[in-house]
Amino acid sequence: MTSRIDVAEKILSANDELAIKNMKILNDANVFGINIMASPGAGKTTFILKTLESLGGRVKFGVIEGDLASSIDSDKAKAAGIPAVQINTGGECHLDSVMLSGALKSMDLSKLDLLIVENVGNLVCPINFKIGTHMNILVASIPEGDDKPYKYPGSYRGVEVLVISKIDLLPYVPFDMEYFKKGVGILNPGLITFEVSAKSGEGMALWGNWLVNKVNSWKENGNK
Amino acid sequence: MTSRIDVAEKILSANDELAIKNMKILNDANVFGINIMASPGAGKTTFILKTLESLGGRVKFGVIEGDLASSIDSDKAKAAGIPAVQINTGGECHLDSVMLSGALKSMDLSKLDLLIVENVGNLVCPINFKIGTHMNILVASIPEGDDKPYKYPGSYRGVEVLVISKIDLLPYVPFDMEYFKKGVGILNPGLITFEVSAKSGEGMALWGNWLVNKVNSWKENGNK
Repeated sequence: MTSRIDVAEKILSANDELAIKNMKILNDANVFGINIMASPGAGKTTFILKTLESLGGRVKFGVIEGDLASSIDSDKAKAAGIPAVQINTGGECHLDSVMLSGALKSMDLSKLDLLIVENVGNLVCPINFKIGTHMNILVASIPEGDDKPYKYPGSYRGVEVLVISKIDLLPYVPFDMEYFKKGVGILNPGLITFEVSAKSGEGMALWGNWLVNKVNSWKENGNK
Repeated sequence: MTSRIDVAEKILSANDELAIKNMKILNDANVFGINIMASPGAGKTTFILKTLESLGGRVKFGVIEGDLASSIDSDKAKAAGIPAVQINTGGECHLDSVMLSGALKSMDLSKLDLLIVENVGNLVCPINFKIGTHMNILVASIPEGDDKPYKYPGSYRGVEVLVISKIDLLPYVPFDMEYFKKGVGILNPGLITFEVSAKSGEGMALWGNWLVNKVNSWKENGNK
């Protein structure tokens, strides 16, 4: 008899195998891939659009937008002049490597240095599914509250970069930054962290410069 | 061979059967059950704690708090004098009827008129799993943005009440209420909606009065 756990393991394993193939496609095209995760409404899309300005043409990037439904996010990216492909998961709570594999076929990777994949807004499921990108980024917004690392440890453990967004709202909501960062530090010591407001622009230049360096050094070192 | 879909259907069916048993336990105890769903950080817990004040002792209620990890929410509820049980899902992205069944055994239902179950913060998965409560409520916070009904249609379709929270933040974030409500109206026409700020207290009395009437009329009409 096939148990629930057996089936889950088989699905995960097939997903991981295809994720490796996706990464090879990105490596062969010399494109650095980022998987951005967050709660619904943490400001992922606005952050990505403002990243375009921060990069100032130094890095050419495209986006793949994941959502249950709608093309709202890819429409916004296209309107800003960013090559964009929309994935609608049709109810699935996360992207997986099959979905990314399909979307990669619609992207002209030869024109890009960087591919930003915006995962489905969900602080639980996406972190459990590799898609084949090189880096995981978590966007955590101030109005979500300072207790989120304690409640969603998996997402905070599984990322290489944390972006604290909507810091312009700090005066208007209860948020203890020390308590928040203490939780992050327990789960993921030394995590690279940026504090930004896409609205006011605060922190975006620092983030943009870091990202340019990251992508360029990865390319110069032969995808490493 | 057991397919992925077969297994998923069996899990759902077993879940629904136990949900019916959970509802019978609530009915026999004459306790009205509410399942509150939302994104992480939409303000579910604060809303529940402020609901206690709005009820002003007219309805006795307890809470069951669902989270991946931590007892932060049930600790807050207990500190406010509300009978509370914590469920830690250990990674699962939603509550199910097995978890609620276990938690119900730790609750003295004879002392309650109302049981509020706070689901895991997740705008995708919880709506797909019945747990045995009488009513689904969605809390949508202003800083999440006005496009959420279009992106997460399932959660907006599957609820009987919508609470728009954190309306005190309206001056500080871009949020087009007309666009938001248009999306809600398409998915769930006539949905009962409250606009509240747990912080300033705005809208909480109206909500509290409505809830008292709802619970009392349900009890007076023999659980109907």
